[in-house]
Amino acid sequence: MIVTLLSDFGTADSYVGQMKGALLAAAPDARLVDLTHAVPPQDVRAGAFHLWAAVAAFPPGTVHLAVVDPGVGTARRAVAVGSRRGDVLVGPDNGLLAPALDRLGGVRWAVRLRPPRGRAVSATFHGRDLFGPAAGRLATGARPGSLGSALPGLEVPLAFPAPCADGARLEGEVLHADVYGNHVTNLPAARLPAAFEVRLAGRRIRGPAASYQAVPRGRPLALVGSSGLLELSVRDGSARRRLRARVGSPVVVVPAGDSPGARGRR
Amino acid sequence: MIVTLLSDFGTADSYVGQMKGALLAAAPDARLVDLTHAVPPQDVRAGAFHLWAAVAAFPPGTVHLAVVDPGVGTARRAVAVGSRRGDVLVGPDNGLLAPALDRLGGVRWAVRLRPPRGRAVSATFHGRDLFGPAAGRLATGARPGSLGSALPGLEVPLAFPAPCADGARLEGEVLHADVYGNHVTNLPAARLPAAFEVRLAGRRIRGPAASYQAVPRGRPLALVGSSGLLELSVRDGSARRRLRARVGSPVVVVPAGDSPGARGRR
Amino acid sequence: MIVTLLSDFGTADSYVGQMKGALLAAAPDARLVDLTHAVPPQDVRAGAFHLWAAVAAFPPGTVHLAVVDPGVGTARRAVAVGSRRGDVLVGPDNGLLAPALDRLGGVRWAVRLRPPRGRAVSATFHGRDLFGPAAGRLATGARPGSLGSALPGLEVPLAFPAPCADGARLEGEVLHADVYGNHVTNLPAARLPAAFEVRLAGRRIRGPAASYQAVPRGRPLALVGSSGLLELSVRDGSARRRLRARVGSPVVVVPAGDSPGARGRR
Repeated sequence: MIVTLLSDFGTADSYVGQMKGALLAAAPDARLVDLTHAVPPQDVRAGAFHLWAAVAAFPPGTVHLAVVDPGVGTARRAVAVGSRRGDVLVGPDNGLLAPALDRLGGVRWAVRLRPPRGRAVSATFHGRDLFGPAAGRLATGARPGSLGSALPGLEVPLAFPAPCADGARLEGEVLHADVYGNHVTNLPAARLPAAFEVRLAGRRIRGPAASYQAVPRGRPLALVGSSGLLELSVRDGSARRRLRARVGSPVVVVPAGDSPGARGRR
Repeated sequence: MIVTLLSDFGTADSYVGQMKGALLAAAPDARLVDLTHAVPPQDVRAGAFHLWAAVAAFPPGTVHLAVVDPGVGTARRAVAVGSRRGDVLVGPDNGLLAPALDRLGGVRWAVRLRPPRGRAVSATFHGRDLFGPAAGRLATGARPGSLGSALPGLEVPLAFPAPCADGARLEGEVLHADVYGNHVTNLPAARLPAAFEVRLAGRRIRGPAASYQAVPRGRPLALVGSSGLLELSVRDGSARRRLRARVGSPVVVVPAGDSPGARGRR
Repeated sequence: MIVTLLSDFGTADSYVGQMKGALLAAAPDARLVDLTHAVPPQDVRAGAFHLWAAVAAFPPGTVHLAVVDPGVGTARRAVAVGSRRGDVLVGPDNGLLAPALDRLGGVRWAVRLRPPRGRAVSATFHGRDLFGPAAGRLATGARPGSLGSALPGLEVPLAFPAPCADGARLEGEVLHADVYGNHVTNLPAARLPAAFEVRLAGRRIRGPAASYQAVPRGRPLALVGSSGLLELSVRDGSARRRLRARVGSPVVVVPAGDSPGARGRR
């Protein structure tokens, strides 16, 4: 059984290792795959993005353990949720799991996790003391009901901003800037015109490009990235450094030809 | 069999991968778990802290391979040590393993590792050429005596400073600053009064807090962290950035009520 | 079956995790080992160095998946190559795989990978959509011919600069600076005199040293590193910071005694 792990623990401490130790104590045969542990500390929305981006690449039935948990030790709910596709998500109910659950078809079952019997639960490290053991037990096929009480679903809903349409004009925003400096937006491929112009931070960029090599070096381009979302990139460079945009910057898409004067601008 | 790995190799080179390759060549079924490879280069004490912090989260019988080894290629001893709890520690005998061994109940057996037969051992990379293969063989159940000659125990002892008590006053120091900026001290929960005041870098902080959320945002707090040690934190912030303290800074704990004038100070 | 992974994806995004998900969907029992994912973005030669440095530490038959792929989405060839030693290399045919293949004895078979049937291949993420599934299938014993059409070998050849000899004088260059700041050169141990002097960035350094401890703290030294290449180091320090050299800097080796006046220079 595959178990993925995502957190804001970083890799300079042994926290991720400790969480894995507790998980493997419950599920010695689990195959562990790190998604990322470099979520900025306590940035639930960034964690939700990475989890959402990753889950579809794994086979149905995978267990995803995600911990970005500024509310650890308070009354926020610790949950495990089964998706309609057959996957399991384990983590705090603070918005972190919601977009991934939505992508996997929505909720099939949900439980509020009880502390494991006979085990001390620290106030500060539920990844090791609560979530890790629960993910391990679920990976070995434990009934969800044996881990806690049933819930109707997640309490804290989908955290991503939805794009909005105004006639042929589509408005969204930058969701994430990745390691290459690509800006990933919240605009899905299905809503894009066949040919379009993107307006971002005073720039106008034609799209879609067929690949990163479709424009000269150092020039910006717009394409559908590997998550199925519109991305803005710079060939052999970094959109993050070259474009004056950041997470949250507005992105507008209009059908190509709909913007007289665009070429003359830059 | 679980084998954990800790080193100062970083993850920008393939050194960790090479060590794992040599280990898996001896133990194809070992389950590898990274503790951390971001120990500052050659900082044996920091490595000892991370190893100590992590070992209790793993089931008994785990093999822990740790390499922070400024003396590689000299006469420093390369060892494998069995703990009373049934775990195995493999690495250089330079203080790195001692605190973890102590936490796991002390020494049951120890051997000085011989270079593996028929294999060239480089002067610079014993992680791959000596420790990795030894950890792999121990993970598959090899007798310790087949790897080298028996020793009475570790030569280089426990490296952590012990706290000291002066009446009701407890004196210790900062052992580690983690990724969140929390200051982990060498003061164990069992030695703390039920209510207390911590003095650190000119600050006075009441404790224990029940969770990170027990104080307003940006305020310091004192709680027992996930390692069972007193930690100083800042809610939704970084104690490392907010408090004028660092690894080695003195920490004093007195019972609460024992410090007239404390409140007026800041 | 062991599958190693190397890329320039970094670990701040979930790209490595997604590639592993696609690989495990095809090969649930593969044992995954990260070599490094910190190759500088699109630096094919640095990736080739790390892959070359790592492959010999793994048992024959290992599958090595390497993706540093500035040409993704263009007509560059996606390949799998079998080595004479029995290993498999999977990745783009852009020079990344060539030095490792050479180290493993050269080509036994090669195929140009076809997109997997019934699966969408994105324009930007062949690691997940093409290379990962191919590596997974090869790890489970699939015939190379089932993954694509046969090729005579790699198209893009060995990328490392070869050292050159001028009488007793050997000229090479710095290939890589590692996490400790050691400068790894392209001069193999077999071509070094028994005693020699290295000239690098205005310095003259006697060698070989037996270990990092063979000179006083802070002094430079020359030794044969764990890859079998000449390395320049600084004891308990960083050659990268102390010597005025970088990747590509020329390195000259002459037999010791062959350089009157050397001692007087510094």
